Amino acid sequence: MSSEIGKRVKLSVFGESHGEMIGCTLHDLPAGEAIDLEAVYAQMARRAPGNDPTATARKESDEPRVVSGFCNGVTTGTPLTAVIVNENTRSGDYAAQLSVPRPGHADHTGMVRYNGANDIRGGGHFSGRLTAPIVFAGAVCRQILARRGITIGAHILQIGDVRDEAFDALGVRASLLKELSEKRFSLIDETKEAPMRAAVAAAKQAADSIGGIIELAVTGLPEGLGSPMFGGVENVLSPLIFGIPAVKGLEFGDGFALGSMRGSEANDCLHYDEHGKLGLMSNHNGGILGGITDGAPLILRAVIKPTPSIGQVQASVDVQHGINTTTVIRGRHDPCIVPRAVPVLEAVTAIGLLDLMESEA
Amino acid sequence: MSSEIGKRVKLSVFGESHGEMIGCTLHDLPAGEAIDLEAVYAQMARRAPGNDPTATARKESDEPRVVSGFCNGVTTGTPLTAVIVNENTRSGDYAAQLSVPRPGHADHTGMVRYNGANDIRGGGHFSGRLTAPIVFAGAVCRQILARRGITIGAHILQIGDVRDEAFDALGVRASLLKELSEKRFSLIDETKEAPMRAAVAAAKQAADSIGGIIELAVTGLPEGLGSPMFGGVENVLSPLIFGIPAVKGLEFGDGFALGSMRGSEANDCLHYDEHGKLGLMSNHNGGILGGITDGAPLILRAVIKPTPSIGQVQASVDVQHGINTTTVIRGRHDPCIVPRAVPVLEAVTAIGLLDLMESEA
Amino acid sequence: MSSEIGKRVKLSVFGESHGEMIGCTLHDLPAGEAIDLEAVYAQMARRAPGNDPTATARKESDEPRVVSGFCNGVTTGTPLTAVIVNENTRSGDYAAQLSVPRPGHADHTGMVRYNGANDIRGGGHFSGRLTAPIVFAGAVCRQILARRGITIGAHILQIGDVRDEAFDALGVRASLLKELSEKRFSLIDETKEAPMRAAVAAAKQAADSIGGIIELAVTGLPEGLGSPMFGGVENVLSPLIFGIPAVKGLEFGDGFALGSMRGSEANDCLHYDEHGKLGLMSNHNGGILGGITDGAPLILRAVIKPTPSIGQVQASVDVQHGINTTTVIRGRHDPCIVPRAVPVLEAVTAIGLLDLMESEA
Amino acid sequence: MSSEIGKRVKLSVFGESHGEMIGCTLHDLPAGEAIDLEAVYAQMARRAPGNDPTATARKESDEPRVVSGFCNGVTTGTPLTAVIVNENTRSGDYAAQLSVPRPGHADHTGMVRYNGANDIRGGGHFSGRLTAPIVFAGAVCRQILARRGITIGAHILQIGDVRDEAFDALGVRASLLKELSEKRFSLIDETKEAPMRAAVAAAKQAADSIGGIIELAVTGLPEGLGSPMFGGVENVLSPLIFGIPAVKGLEFGDGFALGSMRGSEANDCLHYDEHGKLGLMSNHNGGILGGITDGAPLILRAVIKPTPSIGQVQASVDVQHGINTTTVIRGRHDPCIVPRAVPVLEAVTAIGLLDLMESEA
Repeated sequence: MSSEIGKRVKLSVFGESHGEMIGCTLHDLPAGEAIDLEAVYAQMARRAPGNDPTATARKESDEPRVVSGFCNGVTTGTPLTAVIVNENTRSGDYAAQLSVPRPGHADHTGMVRYNGANDIRGGGHFSGRLTAPIVFAGAVCRQILARRGITIGAHILQIGDVRDEAFDALGVRASLLKELSEKRFSLIDETKEAPMRAAVAAAKQAADSIGGIIELAVTGLPEGLGSPMFGGVENVLSPLIFGIPAVKGLEFGDGFALGSMRGSEANDCLHYDEHGKLGLMSNHNGGILGGITDGAPLILRAVIKPTPSIGQVQASVDVQHGINTTTVIRGRHDPCIVPRAVPVLEAVTAIGLLDLMESEA
Repeated sequence: MSSEIGKRVKLSVFGESHGEMIGCTLHDLPAGEAIDLEAVYAQMARRAPGNDPTATARKESDEPRVVSGFCNGVTTGTPLTAVIVNENTRSGDYAAQLSVPRPGHADHTGMVRYNGANDIRGGGHFSGRLTAPIVFAGAVCRQILARRGITIGAHILQIGDVRDEAFDALGVRASLLKELSEKRFSLIDETKEAPMRAAVAAAKQAADSIGGIIELAVTGLPEGLGSPMFGGVENVLSPLIFGIPAVKGLEFGDGFALGSMRGSEANDCLHYDEHGKLGLMSNHNGGILGGITDGAPLILRAVIKPTPSIGQVQASVDVQHGINTTTVIRGRHDPCIVPRAVPVLEAVTAIGLLDLMESEA
Repeated sequence: MSSEIGKRVKLSVFGESHGEMIGCTLHDLPAGEAIDLEAVYAQMARRAPGNDPTATARKESDEPRVVSGFCNGVTTGTPLTAVIVNENTRSGDYAAQLSVPRPGHADHTGMVRYNGANDIRGGGHFSGRLTAPIVFAGAVCRQILARRGITIGAHILQIGDVRDEAFDALGVRASLLKELSEKRFSLIDETKEAPMRAAVAAAKQAADSIGGIIELAVTGLPEGLGSPMFGGVENVLSPLIFGIPAVKGLEFGDGFALGSMRGSEANDCLHYDEHGKLGLMSNHNGGILGGITDGAPLILRAVIKPTPSIGQVQASVDVQHGINTTTVIRGRHDPCIVPRAVPVLEAVTAIGLLDLMESEA
Repeated sequence: MSSEIGKRVKLSVFGESHGEMIGCTLHDLPAGEAIDLEAVYAQMARRAPGNDPTATARKESDEPRVVSGFCNGVTTGTPLTAVIVNENTRSGDYAAQLSVPRPGHADHTGMVRYNGANDIRGGGHFSGRLTAPIVFAGAVCRQILARRGITIGAHILQIGDVRDEAFDALGVRASLLKELSEKRFSLIDETKEAPMRAAVAAAKQAADSIGGIIELAVTGLPEGLGSPMFGGVENVLSPLIFGIPAVKGLEFGDGFALGSMRGSEANDCLHYDEHGKLGLMSNHNGGILGGITDGAPLILRAVIKPTPSIGQVQASVDVQHGINTTTVIRGRHDPCIVPRAVPVLEAVTAIGLLDLMESEA
């Protein structure tokens, strides 16, 4: 249950930040699905580092090789595996971690968990680098969903105190989502890009980092997808979304705002519209009632904590010598991971939704 | 994956609101664990309706019978099953639902999901009544965890706009959690009870309902529990917590507030205290780093949406006749489900944590 | 993974031989499936004790109560649970087991497994009595399969040295299987009943028991069911079949005889018959190639070891006193469990096949 | 559930016979376990083709690269992945399969299962070649088990009509098993090698193939391993063993012979031996009672059907043209796969037993 997940379409992820290869296997994908690898690579490029001032300077080709499960341009139905060869690693940067855990990272918890046997170089298996194969897997699933009329898109709702316009929860269109899902710095209101970049630059200037919130929507989901209790859309997506490093909160529909609302405000009533089509009059529940899609767009938000790797002097300990000390993290790190987390959030959502659809087919 | 969950300690829930019995089975509990059934019943009483003006008038004995897996006062190691006989049901109240779905409920999504075959009486398997066996299961797991030094407690952080004091994230004590976990209207600052009850009464007066937020903490967890990626504490707990009807958001540590924080504010640094004990200097990550417990208390918050059953006239449709109509929900309903959801949140947390501990043992 | 199994249609079994109730839950059954409870009870009667001289004298009503998941004569899609109240237990018979394990039983291994906490009365959760809810679950699944044109039937191929005629592996008809699946002492060649009963009577006379082999066939399975490697029909059925107490061997098609065959004898060649229908010319592989159904009838055989409970004086130990001793098993026991195991084998096969069909739907 | 299996230690296999890479991931291995890669390669060499006249002429380096989960000579606890680059493939040999399925192979069932999208070259994912990563995984698990005192070894019990001596079910020694587990043509009585090879040569001469039976034993297992019903040793091992291509039958202990035995012959009685050590007086149940290890050696046998690829003219169909035809299989094929299946059977047993031990730890 650690690095694999899924009920029917199962994802198995492997690799470490500075190991030989990272990659993933998708089990039990539907057979005969055409996959456009260029479109897959385009998604991976959105996540790749080194393309944007908000990101780390580490350059990687990140070109995945599909080594199994893909033949004549379509999925074979048997395991689909892609590997990415790690290049351009600078393990020397991480020597100090061995005895002085980086604050806010999994250095110490990982060491305790694995009795010191875990690969600590670059965060090892805990590294954000492992989201590359996840984006690969998500890009594959997304294309299959697209053929079923389902569109997934997300945008940066917030970085620091700068906020983008929120989705129109009931009226969000597939065309907007498609557009967002191709952007590198995904915003609804692009005038917010400058102030957001300024907030990141200010954090970087202060040798600091900054967090944010991503909002995601899905249109075209069939009504009636999901199951009660532990088999609902929220239950399927949440362990995937909390699998993204740095996610510490997740809400659907109006989310935490529902805590101060009344039922009369929060209830989404059904009606037949002027064309006689059954639908909802509002979407406070984010397209999910009782765990099951209700026909309205799926709306969710995830918070991304500020990157723990910052250039400031921080308190830490030297576990080898049992003393308090300070540490300064070197190496190449993102002052703000939020823009690169957008395609990752879209990816895990695609994986979860395809799994759910195939599970209940 | 619908009504069963878990990796090693597996929970299987069954029953419908107005069926003959509801109940649950816990698979692969450790053997030989003494269970104090009186303490289990006390937990169930916290959730039971009819004991409090915030709750529905439906009275149930809710007395579970343990029919399997429990012998000579201890768990046998084989499946532990408890059943609760449904009494005092008034199915007549629900006749209208068959054609006019209640707004905010799973009436319509459930009908679509199961092609109209689902038991609609009282919400059927979607009913909050199904949380009774979950509280049973959680109360069993909680006792096993308690013997390992782990204490779980939650309080009503917010109802409407009235807020309780929040947990001291780093310093919260087991004694406080134990106290909270025995309360019916669980608050840290009990002076908030009156204004919270007033907010509920006002909603009831308006034939309306009101939502809230519950905050939960766990002390005594061993450091190093959880696994990276999809096997972490957040990943294990989240599908359980979203299994509680009405939960629409979940956050760990500082949660959504991290979206406007900087790394220097959010990082929890390690230090040796005056006694040479290794620990954290702050707890913005809610006791979890990289999915793994870091020795600080586990802190999480879940939002509970306002009960959808309200006494006001609401728009809906008559699906049988294909027309727009209005509906007024009758029957016995809670104007505020938050106080009764507190023991449920504690219960699923206990189940998830025991599963995780046993899975990684 | 102990007392629950399945990928999509999941079976969860609970109860102990002399506990208050035994029962089972089937998760994620298709919704809206009509279930004829009389036909279910008829299957359970085939397994029930006390109806036949080969069986134990213990009488049970074995009448299950369906307490969840069944409404208006059809499955609701949410968990289907049945409970059977244990009656007519005589726990006094089992007092000796506490210190003197019965040879061939799980008394000692169960005690070691659960550190002595397991319920030892009547074998507890290890008892053959637990096959009653399994037959219930299988009877439900069988009816759903029947509507899809799939027929399951088994017969006693062998008791001691007396053998029934074997199935015509390629030509077996649904009508024969249906007939067999209604019999109490299921044979193709009914002239074998007398010599088989004689073999059982001779064993009983000698205060002994006797084993046998059951052969099962399934017709009407769609071609292309199953997956390679660990997801094939054999992989899905085998853990279910080895879940029947006393099964110690399982073979498909020609099974162990293939060990002395040549490829030219064992290969099943495809041909178009006179009507242009594609089919196999032989069925040495039992209807499964590469884990996947090939259109020929599914054929399997399971061996049932002789009931370990015999009336003879046997060596054992007194673990309480740490000495060698002897034991004589009292209580009501079957001299031959094979006839009652026939519906159990059919039941687990039905459960596994429905799970596989729903998993790959 | 197709190409991945396991409860705690999970195996995920990928690749196709003529694809770019094959490989596997082992999830949730214990951390800090030293793995001797030379010993792993030695196991893989036992399975590798081209080393023996019984085997195919295809030569492969089969050298796996461990790309993840292995650091400083020990397991990291995070996913362990090995890849093997496919070399020396001659896909041209398989062109005919596209329309004329090979008898006894999964060509046609695979095509139906995956709607013709599966990779047919060399059998694709159905190929026996995929047992290479399985042997890799088993060799890793075997070393971890060895450190816990557990030894696994198997031998060719039968090829055609030539039989090796069987294991002494109660008295088999770890030293014998260790010896067997290093052999290429594993026999207890080595005088049987010549007649077995003669039987294979005779089959080859006749452009035919031949089947056999492998017997496996495990010593050193702790008593009390396994769980009742679906969680026993047989239930865990059987889906793994039926995952080996060509296995069509599996028995534990006396297996099918129990069908004609009496209880007084089949029961394994406990006694204290002359040193006061508790043990069994016989081992008809193969070391497993009620699904749980009883302290006696684990004994099982699996039948391997004759390789379906034979050089004779066989009937088949041309599905493209819808006509009956004949086919002659070219390419490099083993006249007898049994010797190479020995290490594969040992491997899956090692994987299953480690999973079970870790699951119940």
